[in-house]
Amino acid sequence: MRVIVPFDPSDPNTRLSSLLAPTERREFAAAMLADVLDAVRAAGGRPELLASAPLADASTAVRDAVGDAPVTVDERSLSAAVNAALADGLPAAVVMADLALADAAALASLFATTGDVVVAPGRGGGTNALVVRDDAFEVDYHGVSFRDHVAAAEAVGASVATVDSFRLAVDVDEPADVLDVLVHGDGRTSEWLRDHGFRVAVEDDGPTVVRDA
Amino acid sequence: MRVIVPFDPSDPNTRLSSLLAPTERREFAAAMLADVLDAVRAAGGRPELLASAPLADASTAVRDAVGDAPVTVDERSLSAAVNAALADGLPAAVVMADLALADAAALASLFATTGDVVVAPGRGGGTNALVVRDDAFEVDYHGVSFRDHVAAAEAVGASVATVDSFRLAVDVDEPADVLDVLVHGDGRTSEWLRDHGFRVAVEDDGPTVVRDA
Repeated sequence: MRVIVPFDPSDPNTRLSSLLAPTERREFAAAMLADVLDAVRAAGGRPELLASAPLADASTAVRDAVGDAPVTVDERSLSAAVNAALADGLPAAVVMADLALADAAALASLFATTGDVVVAPGRGGGTNALVVRDDAFEVDYHGVSFRDHVAAAEAVGASVATVDSFRLAVDVDEPADVLDVLVHGDGRTSEWLRDHGFRVAVEDDGPTVVRDA
Repeated sequence: MRVIVPFDPSDPNTRLSSLLAPTERREFAAAMLADVLDAVRAAGGRPELLASAPLADASTAVRDAVGDAPVTVDERSLSAAVNAALADGLPAAVVMADLALADAAALASLFATTGDVVVAPGRGGGTNALVVRDDAFEVDYHGVSFRDHVAAAEAVGASVATVDSFRLAVDVDEPADVLDVLVHGDGRTSEWLRDHGFRVAVEDDGPTVVRDA
């Protein structure tokens, strides 16, 4: 299966700004991308990077993560870029680059689920991964995209299935998500966090992320 | 399978205080409990309520939700109460009462997963559901309980498996979780929320929960 992985090489994960400096955010995003691409390949997918800016300025870490995966640069909105990529051939999956906990089993389950449109929800109403087998379906990541994607599929008469996966539901874009990576991750992302002083501490309210100086 | 469902009938879901008045929190907790017990029964489990206080003062909604399920009152800590309940007979599952998105498929998958200890992680390092088949294993919900439960199982030589489920990972104890219930729920909990004016609105930062007056 073609697997389109949208990626922002220029200013990724802005909502982690309270936790990470700009350079760190780029390194962290590269580690997540590497983990996602590894998991896609381990699940039998053929990843294609869909970058929102040229990789010319991207770090060595990003280029190492991408390896021999094809790269397309499309500076339009995420939805427009993904729809253009989907038009290049179905079936295809779209997997977000910040799914640091995605593993081969979860992605293989996504790819194997039957349905014209298969959606793996993200927290907060989002769509973290999907499979498209009907060329009348278009993505729209604005708004409550999970609900919108189900409605859009039904509107074109496409069958819809959902995939129930914690590992696919965690997109790492807020500080609270970093805790889940530290607890459940075993790839480059959790290694990067530990190497940069992050760990889980237990406080009165429960587990939290702290950073050692 | 015996399914122990711990429940606080007196002051549940305190972290939802910014969203719900005390009476509303009790109604909301009863709706979640009803959804969880329905899902347990639909998955073939035999639910047993483990209450942290007598149900004498509990609402009609709670008593309706409980129906003919056995009720044990244990006012000790959650971990002590659950360990005492587990000692009454294995295999047994422990399923939290605030898993408003738990459905029969996710719970059936939990019950069917082989392993001396099977853990369904919650967000933030928690343990939302587990199956115990080894009488040397004890729960401890304090701290990073997912990690602690895996370590505790390994310490007594018990095999450990995990269940990867978004529906089991969402325990509804913070305002952000309410959004997931509105988007993905189709039981009494989401009905209660809609009946009380809650809905999803799309703002600049993405979907959010609003309450109509």
